[in-house]
Amino acid sequence: MGSTRARIAIDAMGGDHAPAEIVAGALKAQAELGVEILLVGDPQQIEDSLREQDALGRVCAGQLEIVASEGTVEMHEEPLSALKRKPKASINVAMNLVKQQQADAVVSAGHSGAAMAAALLRLGRLPGIDRPAIGAVLPTMVAGRAVLILDVGANVDCRPKFLEQFAAMGTIYSQYVLGVAEPRIGLLNIGEEPSKGNDAAVRTHQLLVDNPHIPFVGNAEGRDVLSGKFDVIVCDGFVGNVLLKFAEAVGEVVVQVLKEELVKGLQHQINDPLLQKSLQGFKQRVDHVEHGGGLLLGVAGVCIISHGSSQAASIANAVRLAKGAIDNQVLERIQSEYRQSPVEQEVRN
Amino acid sequence: MGSTRARIAIDAMGGDHAPAEIVAGALKAQAELGVEILLVGDPQQIEDSLREQDALGRVCAGQLEIVASEGTVEMHEEPLSALKRKPKASINVAMNLVKQQQADAVVSAGHSGAAMAAALLRLGRLPGIDRPAIGAVLPTMVAGRAVLILDVGANVDCRPKFLEQFAAMGTIYSQYVLGVAEPRIGLLNIGEEPSKGNDAAVRTHQLLVDNPHIPFVGNAEGRDVLSGKFDVIVCDGFVGNVLLKFAEAVGEVVVQVLKEELVKGLQHQINDPLLQKSLQGFKQRVDHVEHGGGLLLGVAGVCIISHGSSQAASIANAVRLAKGAIDNQVLERIQSEYRQSPVEQEVRN
Repeated sequence: MGSTRARIAIDAMGGDHAPAEIVAGALKAQAELGVEILLVGDPQQIEDSLREQDALGRVCAGQLEIVASEGTVEMHEEPLSALKRKPKASINVAMNLVKQQQADAVVSAGHSGAAMAAALLRLGRLPGIDRPAIGAVLPTMVAGRAVLILDVGANVDCRPKFLEQFAAMGTIYSQYVLGVAEPRIGLLNIGEEPSKGNDAAVRTHQLLVDNPHIPFVGNAEGRDVLSGKFDVIVCDGFVGNVLLKFAEAVGEVVVQVLKEELVKGLQHQINDPLLQKSLQGFKQRVDHVEHGGGLLLGVAGVCIISHGSSQAASIANAVRLAKGAIDNQVLERIQSEYRQSPVEQEVRN
Repeated sequence: MGSTRARIAIDAMGGDHAPAEIVAGALKAQAELGVEILLVGDPQQIEDSLREQDALGRVCAGQLEIVASEGTVEMHEEPLSALKRKPKASINVAMNLVKQQQADAVVSAGHSGAAMAAALLRLGRLPGIDRPAIGAVLPTMVAGRAVLILDVGANVDCRPKFLEQFAAMGTIYSQYVLGVAEPRIGLLNIGEEPSKGNDAAVRTHQLLVDNPHIPFVGNAEGRDVLSGKFDVIVCDGFVGNVLLKFAEAVGEVVVQVLKEELVKGLQHQINDPLLQKSLQGFKQRVDHVEHGGGLLLGVAGVCIISHGSSQAASIANAVRLAKGAIDNQVLERIQSEYRQSPVEQEVRN
């Protein structure tokens, strides 16, 4: 295999539809993106999935590699103890591949808490970061303008200092990866005024105001998230996760409600192929399958946390996201920027 | 005025567009619903607004009443101290009208924290309730089936016991007011498993499982909110408020994104009047203006908390909500049910 191609380790055992859909997504990604794939999991189960998909030959031809692991972290398990009890669990093995520079990135649709914990244990944090955050990119009302939300699930309880670090990472990510020259950072809250919100929100607001290296423009309410007024919105992983999952589901709800209304209004025109195409275009703009997953920011490796419900298309898009992060040297840029800029000092003090 | 008609006290000074839009909404509500209106605020400003809307004659004809107040609680003020410093503030005067049985309900688009605090101070809590909650009703994917979310902003930090009380009130409200024979109660969380979420979520989950009087079916993730799988979803007021405001804004976002997609797909048919009508029908199903506001559950009076951004149509719908609560004896039913049922004992112990 050529070493200049991105090498993606995929946790084949993680997710509701593992390993069949994960393997299918890996094959799709390889065909479309030309990346090297390392499928991590139970060799027998992976081979069975490959055989069912008439793709076992690719292993023999050296086009993809199976890396053996034993067991996986189950959804009901407490991540840290499970990771220690199962050193050969698929997510542990996948992270080790990155640590040993045998892979450039990990994609996992398994237990998201376990993926974060494994990344922390095996790869470690970037300097100046206490807690990594999962960032998710959503489209906004303004065409071509996206919003990065973090954290969307890595940390259910956040100290104000963590949120400040998320803002610092989000600023860099927005500038160097999403290409926003002057990113506008917001704090998710229940009102515009600095006094609004719970104790953590009030204290975080003050930290962000006081930090001259974060282009903080103020509190973002729920209604502002998709408005395009903010390029980055920071929040704790509880509210961020609820919001993200709600947003993802809205696409489906909307298409259904809309069809009902269109049926009322347009009668039989609902079957108009052009209208169907429009609805599909709409769904693509809002559908989470298109986004693939969230990037774990703050650890010393590229890690994509995909949805537990991921099917092949999602996994392929997660690999696309990983490849984008590698190609654009996301990690190096954040690490280097964070080291060089006074943000780190500011946050660490 | 006939004493059998619902008497609604409206805080004419509360909200971004007070008093003009509040007065306009009151006039609209009176015309459409035949309720008695008491406009609470600065008499001069209210009269000016009425004059501009050619409706000053209604006061002279005894069709509506102006009740003088002095000042209002501003959005940046800390509610409790402001209410004490300004005993004649519009929200205080409006609550007193209910306390003195001169009005049956209060509608306010002012500082929501102040409205809740004033309700607590002037009207008091229902027995067994530590904290009132603001409930908001959202449509779901299942036609004719709504979901009650509480709290959506009254309490930014919630102890598990408070969330349990919200679940108890939501159960009763869903049964007796929304007419759901067997309501399914959910706890907003970031995963289905009982172990998921922050500390408060894990402890609340256990309380709800252990309470035999709450038909708890489990954790509701963000994606489940509009699925129709739950009739009531409890959460703290921070996440509930973010979610509600996000949901409200989604309608607008969707209509715009959809129009763009339809323009691509259908070319000039975007101006088709039937299509326009469909989009309007869709917008109505999701638009917050149609919902009017949230009901404050747990205080000894009917109080509707409207959006700060409310314009006339929202205020009129808030009055409609108040009238519905009065006509259906919401308060009496909750109070009586709560007293008679073992839920109260359960929750208090």
